Amino acid sequence: MNLTEDSLIAALKTRFQVPSPLVGIGDDCAIIPQGEYGELLTTDALIEGVHFLKSTLSSKDLGYKSIMVNVSDIAAMGGTPLYALLSMGLPREISPDFLPSFLEGIEEALRATHVHLIGGDTVASLQHIFINITIVGRVKLKEVKRREGAKPGDILCVDGYLGNSAAGLADLLKGAKSSSVVLEAHQRPRAHVGEGCWLAQSEQVHAMMDLSDGLAMDLPRLLEASKCSARIDLEKLPISSALSDWCKRTQKNPYSMAVEGGEDYCLLFAVAPGHLEKLKYAFQKQFGRPIFPIGQLRAPADCKVRYFLDGVACDLEVNPFQHF
Amino acid sequence: MNLTEDSLIAALKTRFQVPSPLVGIGDDCAIIPQGEYGELLTTDALIEGVHFLKSTLSSKDLGYKSIMVNVSDIAAMGGTPLYALLSMGLPREISPDFLPSFLEGIEEALRATHVHLIGGDTVASLQHIFINITIVGRVKLKEVKRREGAKPGDILCVDGYLGNSAAGLADLLKGAKSSSVVLEAHQRPRAHVGEGCWLAQSEQVHAMMDLSDGLAMDLPRLLEASKCSARIDLEKLPISSALSDWCKRTQKNPYSMAVEGGEDYCLLFAVAPGHLEKLKYAFQKQFGRPIFPIGQLRAPADCKVRYFLDGVACDLEVNPFQHF
Repeated sequence: MNLTEDSLIAALKTRFQVPSPLVGIGDDCAIIPQGEYGELLTTDALIEGVHFLKSTLSSKDLGYKSIMVNVSDIAAMGGTPLYALLSMGLPREISPDFLPSFLEGIEEALRATHVHLIGGDTVASLQHIFINITIVGRVKLKEVKRREGAKPGDILCVDGYLGNSAAGLADLLKGAKSSSVVLEAHQRPRAHVGEGCWLAQSEQVHAMMDLSDGLAMDLPRLLEASKCSARIDLEKLPISSALSDWCKRTQKNPYSMAVEGGEDYCLLFAVAPGHLEKLKYAFQKQFGRPIFPIGQLRAPADCKVRYFLDGVACDLEVNPFQHF
Repeated sequence: MNLTEDSLIAALKTRFQVPSPLVGIGDDCAIIPQGEYGELLTTDALIEGVHFLKSTLSSKDLGYKSIMVNVSDIAAMGGTPLYALLSMGLPREISPDFLPSFLEGIEEALRATHVHLIGGDTVASLQHIFINITIVGRVKLKEVKRREGAKPGDILCVDGYLGNSAAGLADLLKGAKSSSVVLEAHQRPRAHVGEGCWLAQSEQVHAMMDLSDGLAMDLPRLLEASKCSARIDLEKLPISSALSDWCKRTQKNPYSMAVEGGEDYCLLFAVAPGHLEKLKYAFQKQFGRPIFPIGQLRAPADCKVRYFLDGVACDLEVNPFQHF
């Protein structure tokens, strides 16, 4: 069965329509309106062997990351995360060290994001660890950001470096042990909650999502929802000096890493062009670091991404991000 | 690692305390107060090979049951189910027939319980199907029923037959194909939402939960929360004529089936003794079928269940319910 996540979501969206004003399947979170607020709900699964390996993620980091990747979906819509539910499927023969350190990681991420664990389910699994987290959040309805709403001409921005996590994963798969910027990016991603809330307050930010599967896979989802296409200027992609060094060492193309690499969990958003400079300045002032304009939305509604290098159209061969 | 669900929940409860007036880990649902209402949240996982086999549950029944067993947790607290989130982990080599019929089952259960699917996550899994459902419900805070609150002297009741599902599972594991009452009980459980809401309106119902792991495993959880113990009168256990016939045929003890068998998803509740007759009458009038008093709560706070047969204490050997 050739099952892609996007085709399945499209099928679910058609099949399970929700009554307005609820927002259902297809955004980072579902929204249940409650007066002037919306409750945000998101759920995400992590499966051993698919999303992580014991060799690439310690049990503590697994706990930490499980919470962060879910909180990131709340951040993506401009919300504040509040509560978490945790389902765990653990094989009976799991090491006795696993659970205490996994829960320590969970606790650390909950503390960092001010989220309370209020429930869950624990079951046996046959062979592999699986984790499912549901996060409940809250957002002012007039501030909520969705994937739809971006307009041709809007400037596409990200609020952090791209490709670090994928480089970290590549190192880990080769057995890297010692800490580094790229390893840390993979094992300890940070959900951009403060940034998401702040960006949500601007009416000039027309659409937003988080980057979990990489720009090449995630951007078309925003384009699909907003019915437009995009131009990405490769030379503008924010590439950390750590990734730059890594690419020299491994002879990889940094643009490919930045475009294809998943699990960076920074925010991708579309800003009205006339408002960009003001937003850049204010963001820098607020967070002490920049946002990065990386391209522009365009009118053709084919939902395609076209890559340019120094103003010249180029064929970047893009391989979809795979966790392994 | 010898991991029992109860010991793990106890550990989580100690570790992840939630700020009052939130109710967290340990009940059937978590409760988030919202004015005079409480939002109920529950999450439950079903794993192939642990909770079901392809040979015991068709993909359509799997979809149906996944929703029902989660909705049952909302019913257990007297709530109305509203929204569902669905996480699916599907192996890549799964049959192309699986998904359409699984979703048909999901849809049927959603329709039957007036629940809207508003989001989810779809991921690949390595080998086994796993399903995780989160249900959001709502309850008037003054009506919510919990596992705590039962008092010594209260009459323990159930609102449906016990042991049918376990008999159905035993038949299925032996290859049964033709439909029967016990097969239906296993494959198509019904969440007692109407009954739960109705019982919740009575202040004389002091505690409630649903029976998912069987009386022998679930009742001690209610006793633990209410700090008391219980007497069960075996001859009062509601045993359907279908189970009775089944036990004759298979030479099983019907009391053991009723006490140990899981997945009946009826409600277990504690009623003030002086109110029992009135409640019995009103329930019969409302639902056209009886509730069954099966024993009484007692003062010793050792949380133990003592079994009696025709007034005489008896040692019923109880094996904890296993899905397989």
